[in-house]
Amino acid sequence: MEKMKIAATARHIPERVVSNDDLAELMETSDEWIYPRTGIHNRHVVDNENTSDLATGVAKKLLEQAGWAPSDLDFIIVSTMSPDALSPHTAAIVQGNIGAENAFAFDLNAACSGFVYGMSVASSFLTSGRYKKGMFIGAEVLSKLVDWKDRTVSVLFGDGAGGVLLEATDEEKGLLAEELQAFGDRGEAILTGRFANKNAFAGEISPLDPYFHQDGRGVYSFATREVPKVLDKALAKAGVSADDVDLYIAHQANHRIIESMAKNFGQPMDKFPTNMAEYGNTSAASPAILLDELVQDGKVKPGMTIAFVGFGGGLAIGAQVWKV
Amino acid sequence: MEKMKIAATARHIPERVVSNDDLAELMETSDEWIYPRTGIHNRHVVDNENTSDLATGVAKKLLEQAGWAPSDLDFIIVSTMSPDALSPHTAAIVQGNIGAENAFAFDLNAACSGFVYGMSVASSFLTSGRYKKGMFIGAEVLSKLVDWKDRTVSVLFGDGAGGVLLEATDEEKGLLAEELQAFGDRGEAILTGRFANKNAFAGEISPLDPYFHQDGRGVYSFATREVPKVLDKALAKAGVSADDVDLYIAHQANHRIIESMAKNFGQPMDKFPTNMAEYGNTSAASPAILLDELVQDGKVKPGMTIAFVGFGGGLAIGAQVWKV
Ligand SMILES: CC(C)(COP(=O)(O)OP(=O)(O)OC[C@H]1O[C@@H](n2cnc3c(N)ncnc32)[C@H](O)[C@@H]1OP(=O)(O)O)[C@@H](O)C(=O)NCCC(=O)NCCS
Ligand SMILES: CC(C)(COP(=O)(O)OP(=O)(O)OC[C@H]1O[C@@H](n2cnc3c(N)ncnc32)[C@H](O)[C@@H]1OP(=O)(O)O)[C@@H](O)C(=O)NCCC(=O)NCCS
Repeated sequence: MEKMKIAATARHIPERVVSNDDLAELMETSDEWIYPRTGIHNRHVVDNENTSDLATGVAKKLLEQAGWAPSDLDFIIVSTMSPDALSPHTAAIVQGNIGAENAFAFDLNAACSGFVYGMSVASSFLTSGRYKKGMFIGAEVLSKLVDWKDRTVSVLFGDGAGGVLLEATDEEKGLLAEELQAFGDRGEAILTGRFANKNAFAGEISPLDPYFHQDGRGVYSFATREVPKVLDKALAKAGVSADDVDLYIAHQANHRIIESMAKNFGQPMDKFPTNMAEYGNTSAASPAILLDELVQDGKVKPGMTIAFVGFGGGLAIGAQVWKV
Repeated sequence: MEKMKIAATARHIPERVVSNDDLAELMETSDEWIYPRTGIHNRHVVDNENTSDLATGVAKKLLEQAGWAPSDLDFIIVSTMSPDALSPHTAAIVQGNIGAENAFAFDLNAACSGFVYGMSVASSFLTSGRYKKGMFIGAEVLSKLVDWKDRTVSVLFGDGAGGVLLEATDEEKGLLAEELQAFGDRGEAILTGRFANKNAFAGEISPLDPYFHQDGRGVYSFATREVPKVLDKALAKAGVSADDVDLYIAHQANHRIIESMAKNFGQPMDKFPTNMAEYGNTSAASPAILLDELVQDGKVKPGMTIAFVGFGGGLAIGAQVWKV
């Protein structure tokens, strides 16, 4: 076990709620179509915030929760596939906003696996012995990467941010194991956020296309087939059985994918909590938001074994097993 | 010391060379203006490649150099501020292209400090004991983020990629120390790569702006003032003096910034090699390209102490000290 603890959790969700019925006014869709296929009723969408604003909201709550000063932080990592900009990176904006004068900061992109991959990097910094206290946030404003005339993607995604503070500890808790995998040969299944590749000499090599395009069926069958294998490897490395795990905190893309996972591992659905009904798919933020809800509701207890599971763009998958 | 070795280096540069004279045909500028202020004569610009193509070129050469199979790799990290797209992330495309079936992959963004930050994460994965063999690449197609009518930025940047293989070892070599810092309150000094923040409910919150905007003077004085302090801390942590360092491989933004650094540390310029004359500023790729040139020229010898230095967008700074 790599000893460390999750010293705080927090989330920051934009106030504006967009229901399936709201969407039905914009495009040919309905709650009857969306909800049974995805488990999504609502999603939250920004009004005048960008990704760094949501992340800064999380950062401030995290410090308050733990009673840490900004100067206590050694690093700030933000996982996002929807940064404010390519420069400055979103983590640097957060660092400046909270005045974390001793923290370095960078962004990480592993799409919807961003939570697990960010936890991997952050925990590795602690285990290496180089750093003692870090902040990791998953933050997304996916509403800016969605074509709101395209019902095949716009109904799925939402905006939000969540995060954790991680701290080295001598207590018997921490990361038991992880398994991370890439399937880059299937990367075309989830596309978004493409600037035009052009210059004064070559002309336009490829066009601007900010928007999500998704092979929904392909991603669905990929997720139901490959994610359990990755989770299985993580459990094996951790030396725990599926029954030993108290909570599976999985990426909230689709209720049916999570049901299929629970079934696959012979686990009851109450070990696989969900919140996509309220937030939709918030990519790197999604397990962090769910974790914070569970912590605030008192459902995460010391000594529990928790599995985090991410999957999506890249394509990429990741699973971590923690003793908290 | 965190024991590990740089098992291979490689670079991949687009063929098309754009000279200052070429630029003078497009805009009101000249070699006489550009060269004395920056040290840049040429930059290379893509013809029909994107960032993942340059990175894949590096990846293939790296494996060939070291005689590693793609399946040997535990992870692939790509530092970039100019990814092909926000999804799939560039590292996943590389993973798919080279068939690295056992490697996970993600992108990291710390702008022009991306090389040092990527080396920090990659080395931390080895030190944690979780992984044994990793690939780290810095890759940029900045030509797509440059307004080729704007002489204040278009003359500075170039395209290219470079990378390393890192491997755990028992030999007396590896990372001696690092110092990484963020200055997010000054993030506005280097802006690029902004998608419109807009949705069907809020309308347009902020507009699309792919292009670089830079407070050149601000960045210049920031770099000459703050970078030496960070490097100084890294040397102190490593327990080496400036004289002990054999080579300073610094981000190739501007020749005058590097001269100022050499002077600051009382070191001769031949310890501060440069190549921006040929490539311009290639952001996260720049120290990797230079390192590979030095290795291929036989200028990096076993036992040497090398300092890597990065600075730029974020704003962010980083320095690492290695025994190679
Ligand atoms: C996206 C998803 C819900 C679509 O469900 P599906 O049953 O596969 O639906 P299809 O894409 O095959 O489309 C079926 C029909 O519904 C239509 N449709 C698509 N979106 C619709 C919507 N929001 N409302 C109404 N109709 C819709 C399609 O146009 C198609 O119509 P057609 O048969 O006339 O051509 C499902 O594929 C899914 O959940 N995939 C996983 C996606 C995911 O989780 N991605 C994120 C991973 S991080
Ligand atoms: C960018 C840099 C070379 C500009 O040099 P400078 O001496 O500061 O020049 P200024 O921006 O003050 O501009 C001086 C004049 O030159 C002009 N100018 C700018 N770029 C020019 C160009 N390429 N050719 C000709 N004239 C140019 C300006 O328009 C200005 O004209 P004005 O006085 O009529 O308004 C310099 O500030 C620098 O190197 N900064 C560091 C940037 C850097 O390294 N960034 C990357 C960090 S990762």
